[in-house]
Amino acid sequence: MTTTASSPASLAAPADIPSRLSAVRGALAARQVQAVLVPSSDPHLSEYLPERWQGRAWLSGFTGSSGTLLVAASQAALFTDSRYWEQAEAELAGTGVDLVKLDGPATPAYVQWLKDLGLDSIAGPLAMAVDGQVMGLAQTQALQDALKADGWQLRTDLDVLDAVWPGRPGLPSAAVFEHLPPHAATSRADKLALLRKALADKGATHHWIATLDDLAWALNLRGADVDYNPVFLGHLLLSLDSATLFVADGKVNADLRDRLAQDGVQVQTYGLALDALAALPADTVLLIDPKRVTWGLREAVPEGVRVVESINPSTLAKSRKTPDEARFIREAMARDGAAMCAFYAWFDKALGREYISELTIDERLTAERAKQAEFISLSFPTIAGFNANGALPHYRATPEAYAVLSTPEGLTAEGLLLIDSGAQYLGGTTDITRVWAIGTPSAEQKRDYTLVLKGTLGLSRTRFPRGTLAPMLDAIARAPLWAEGLDFGHGTGHGVGYFLNVHEGPQSISKAVPDANMAMQAGMITSIEPGLYRPSQWGIRIENLVLNVPVPPAVPDAAPGTPEHGQYLAFETLTLCPIDTRCIDLALMRADEVQWLNDYHAEVLRRLSPLVTGDALAWLQARTKAI
Amino acid sequence: MTTTASSPASLAAPADIPSRLSAVRGALAARQVQAVLVPSSDPHLSEYLPERWQGRAWLSGFTGSSGTLLVAASQAALFTDSRYWEQAEAELAGTGVDLVKLDGPATPAYVQWLKDLGLDSIAGPLAMAVDGQVMGLAQTQALQDALKADGWQLRTDLDVLDAVWPGRPGLPSAAVFEHLPPHAATSRADKLALLRKALADKGATHHWIATLDDLAWALNLRGADVDYNPVFLGHLLLSLDSATLFVADGKVNADLRDRLAQDGVQVQTYGLALDALAALPADTVLLIDPKRVTWGLREAVPEGVRVVESINPSTLAKSRKTPDEARFIREAMARDGAAMCAFYAWFDKALGREYISELTIDERLTAERAKQAEFISLSFPTIAGFNANGALPHYRATPEAYAVLSTPEGLTAEGLLLIDSGAQYLGGTTDITRVWAIGTPSAEQKRDYTLVLKGTLGLSRTRFPRGTLAPMLDAIARAPLWAEGLDFGHGTGHGVGYFLNVHEGPQSISKAVPDANMAMQAGMITSIEPGLYRPSQWGIRIENLVLNVPVPPAVPDAAPGTPEHGQYLAFETLTLCPIDTRCIDLALMRADEVQWLNDYHAEVLRRLSPLVTGDALAWLQARTKAI
Repeated sequence: MTTTASSPASLAAPADIPSRLSAVRGALAARQVQAVLVPSSDPHLSEYLPERWQGRAWLSGFTGSSGTLLVAASQAALFTDSRYWEQAEAELAGTGVDLVKLDGPATPAYVQWLKDLGLDSIAGPLAMAVDGQVMGLAQTQALQDALKADGWQLRTDLDVLDAVWPGRPGLPSAAVFEHLPPHAATSRADKLALLRKALADKGATHHWIATLDDLAWALNLRGADVDYNPVFLGHLLLSLDSATLFVADGKVNADLRDRLAQDGVQVQTYGLALDALAALPADTVLLIDPKRVTWGLREAVPEGVRVVESINPSTLAKSRKTPDEARFIREAMARDGAAMCAFYAWFDKALGREYISELTIDERLTAERAKQAEFISLSFPTIAGFNANGALPHYRATPEAYAVLSTPEGLTAEGLLLIDSGAQYLGGTTDITRVWAIGTPSAEQKRDYTLVLKGTLGLSRTRFPRGTLAPMLDAIARAPLWAEGLDFGHGTGHGVGYFLNVHEGPQSISKAVPDANMAMQAGMITSIEPGLYRPSQWGIRIENLVLNVPVPPAVPDAAPGTPEHGQYLAFETLTLCPIDTRCIDLALMRADEVQWLNDYHAEVLRRLSPLVTGDALAWLQARTKAI
Repeated sequence: MTTTASSPASLAAPADIPSRLSAVRGALAARQVQAVLVPSSDPHLSEYLPERWQGRAWLSGFTGSSGTLLVAASQAALFTDSRYWEQAEAELAGTGVDLVKLDGPATPAYVQWLKDLGLDSIAGPLAMAVDGQVMGLAQTQALQDALKADGWQLRTDLDVLDAVWPGRPGLPSAAVFEHLPPHAATSRADKLALLRKALADKGATHHWIATLDDLAWALNLRGADVDYNPVFLGHLLLSLDSATLFVADGKVNADLRDRLAQDGVQVQTYGLALDALAALPADTVLLIDPKRVTWGLREAVPEGVRVVESINPSTLAKSRKTPDEARFIREAMARDGAAMCAFYAWFDKALGREYISELTIDERLTAERAKQAEFISLSFPTIAGFNANGALPHYRATPEAYAVLSTPEGLTAEGLLLIDSGAQYLGGTTDITRVWAIGTPSAEQKRDYTLVLKGTLGLSRTRFPRGTLAPMLDAIARAPLWAEGLDFGHGTGHGVGYFLNVHEGPQSISKAVPDANMAMQAGMITSIEPGLYRPSQWGIRIENLVLNVPVPPAVPDAAPGTPEHGQYLAFETLTLCPIDTRCIDLALMRADEVQWLNDYHAEVLRRLSPLVTGDALAWLQARTKAI
């Protein structure tokens, strides 16, 4: 899936908004601040937010995953980028919230909006509130600096929302469970030892983990506090000889508590986390990741503590899947591919004979995945977009709005169907996008499809030196599109967790400004998913997950200065599912590209055919035929 | 040429070094500092240094263009990277200076070396001196921070070298001359107006230009203070309504002084520059480029002045060649190509019949260029490297050491000849690398050559959105080499000036960490020069200069959100010279690659054939034959 996703649920109807805004304005006046910024974030800087932290949606009605609300006495505005303009316009209608279409960095736009309010600092200091407990550290610093230059103060100590949100949802309460061997291929004790070694190497005595996937990875624990990501709300305070997990009462049962204690991990209640941080003794050297803690957390660090800023060691470690993990991932991928075969075999047969909508597709595909061993949940909401809907990279059909592809009387339309879906298995996380022809694709559709495919396979075949910064590979996937003056607006690929978040860092194949942590290392799993989106017409995206595997050196131990010096990585394509060859314009494919595709299909057939029978096998055989 | 070059001249013999080091050590003791750092830099952060600032070479004997000397009471060390290890080992032998082989960032290595001296700060403060007048601002800050963490102070107010260098060369005194229309296609007045507009846009009242190519560009002036780069030593202080050029007395004649005055540019003596900076009034808002001023210059800015840090507006402006400039460049490229034809025609005929050494090649090729209209000088020292010498990217044959290719009795050896050369013309700067087969190339040589060629032409064909950060294109040139587990140790391409420095920014197609100033814009000229170096065997580099040209949009004014949105750039290959097809392994070339090469050769033939006759024309016709 592309690197943003829709927010799970709407918490507001347009008619509710004006009175909520008015309550917020009362709170602003009482606190003598002129504006409040409501971000899309939580105390763990999560991508998917528990309902408690969906305040922006509650207060504006806008449910997209990315967007920030600013409220002042006279006006309110929702800032979001082009992916969400259409949705925001619809959802904000009648709420009294304006849409500010972001076409660049957000912070200057916020500052400009405040300036345009025309408030006069002569009457007193101007201040904007933001809940520092949920704003990222670096982001808050940048905002504070930008506001200061304009005469505004940033108040980070007020949670304005809390005062005006009656019945605000509490903390999620799903039980925490253990990720067990063999799938948890590295023991908790080994992981803690690895993290402690990293601490010692940095000269640190303590480390704070606030990000939920880092926490889950470090302790081999999983949860269900947010949809799709098998994580739970908590913090970990790790020292060289102790470890404390802060988690809400009742989520860790006595048995698990004992097991954690055996590895030296004490459990304390979630609400005491920041107190424990504030109580660190003055000789502490605390390692924290400035990109992975909130402003509020950083503020809670006592004066005397020396802070070492560095990426979470767990973020680097969990990105490098072990050989055992890779083995389980390959199994999970085969199961996922078998589910796809079963689904598509039904789909092909049912097309024009049964009622099929985008919602049916989600249901049927999910049901096939759920039949697979070790299936836990989807890894993100299925995107099944037919024709124009496929052109919205973050589309999600809803019971109120969805397209119908087929009825018992026949096809309702011809065109392209884009399905982006994935699942969590005990042994890995999947994420795959395919596009299928319904009826006969047009020449233009075939051209678009083929150009995207050339991008996917062009990058999939690339070999590169270990340590290459992932963003430097982005152009290779875009080149076939760029050649025709075409591009797409999302990243080419994101890191993928191991039975963890479908989006994880540190690597990103995108236009992101590279930093040293984005260096490609053996074991990393990344998506390759170029796309092409024709608004109101169709969308194309062809996505596989790939594993960084070392290439045996042509000249072992080549000396520095020789051109063979250094280790190389290749991508092993993990995803196993046919790519629709009926959509290919063969005239645009080079012989070597056709060869790659035929080789891939032969491998898909070899790996999946033992797992499927009947219609699914027939479908697999038909769809993996060489071209 | 690759992005570093050899220092022009040696200033020291090994036997001179010990006494010089001993004089420096006396100066250190007298000034109560424990060490001195002697960088390879001048007050203008130039790549090529006037002799006055070749102190590192004078004091160590090492003449490479990149390297830093550290001297302490007991030890001295020269820090340089792998490109120079061989040369440094040879030149440092017997000097008492150790070689520290840099294999990563320099600053931590300096600090470690100081630490290893085992000096004890209990006896008093530890301090290292560096001449702040020649160290870059950012570099000095980083060094200062790193030293501080280790208990060392950095003294930037001492020029230790000056005290111990008898007969230190003075300032260069070559006359400054005007770059005139039509080649100076934008008037001085228009350039100053453009810079003043950039100042106003940034809210600045003043701007300081210390970098020599920026200065030369802004005033349409040129000089000859350093070899190869047509620049002169000076500073420019620009305000919204005045401009002062600081340049050594006697370099600007009365006539030119009058002409400058007509454009509102006053001339003052070079030595008063920092005084003028220090005298800026307190309400000044000064724009300076932190990457393009020294520490000393920044320190001279008075307290009350507000500094706005931003890239020099001239650096951006001069990188974007105007259509008029592009026209002259194409003419210069054709002249340069014609000179190459004449040279190679002679070379091919003389091989095995005349005495030809690497030095002869330089002489003959330079002579052919010098015959061309509007030729001014070479743009860098010719690199003519036969076989093993070609494997040294910065090789330069000397009268003491050079290879002989042919005598009247026949070839002395077979192999590959690499020639990297270029010139300054009134209408542009050239830089081209070709590799030629002497005798019959081996299968391995052909494979290497073909892989490099695939890199050159692969990137040359790439189209990309305007604004793409240049480093993001680097992987495209390397991909064919990476596929075989091969790489090269220099950047893929550097910006090139317009009758200015052969290396200029801001764009760089390399592994550099991109910043927003590296965005590709129409009019930029960049080299594409992947390579492959087999130590002690042969080296390959195939280099063309390319111009960023806008691609006519497939869909004019495509709306944001559509895949055709945005402007695209293509590379127009400016360099006109055959590429040796005898070295190609056709089995490794795809049909589309062969097509590109044949098209290129057809264009080279079309453009150059009107400019050459006789042997040169016959050579051109033979070497541009389609394959």
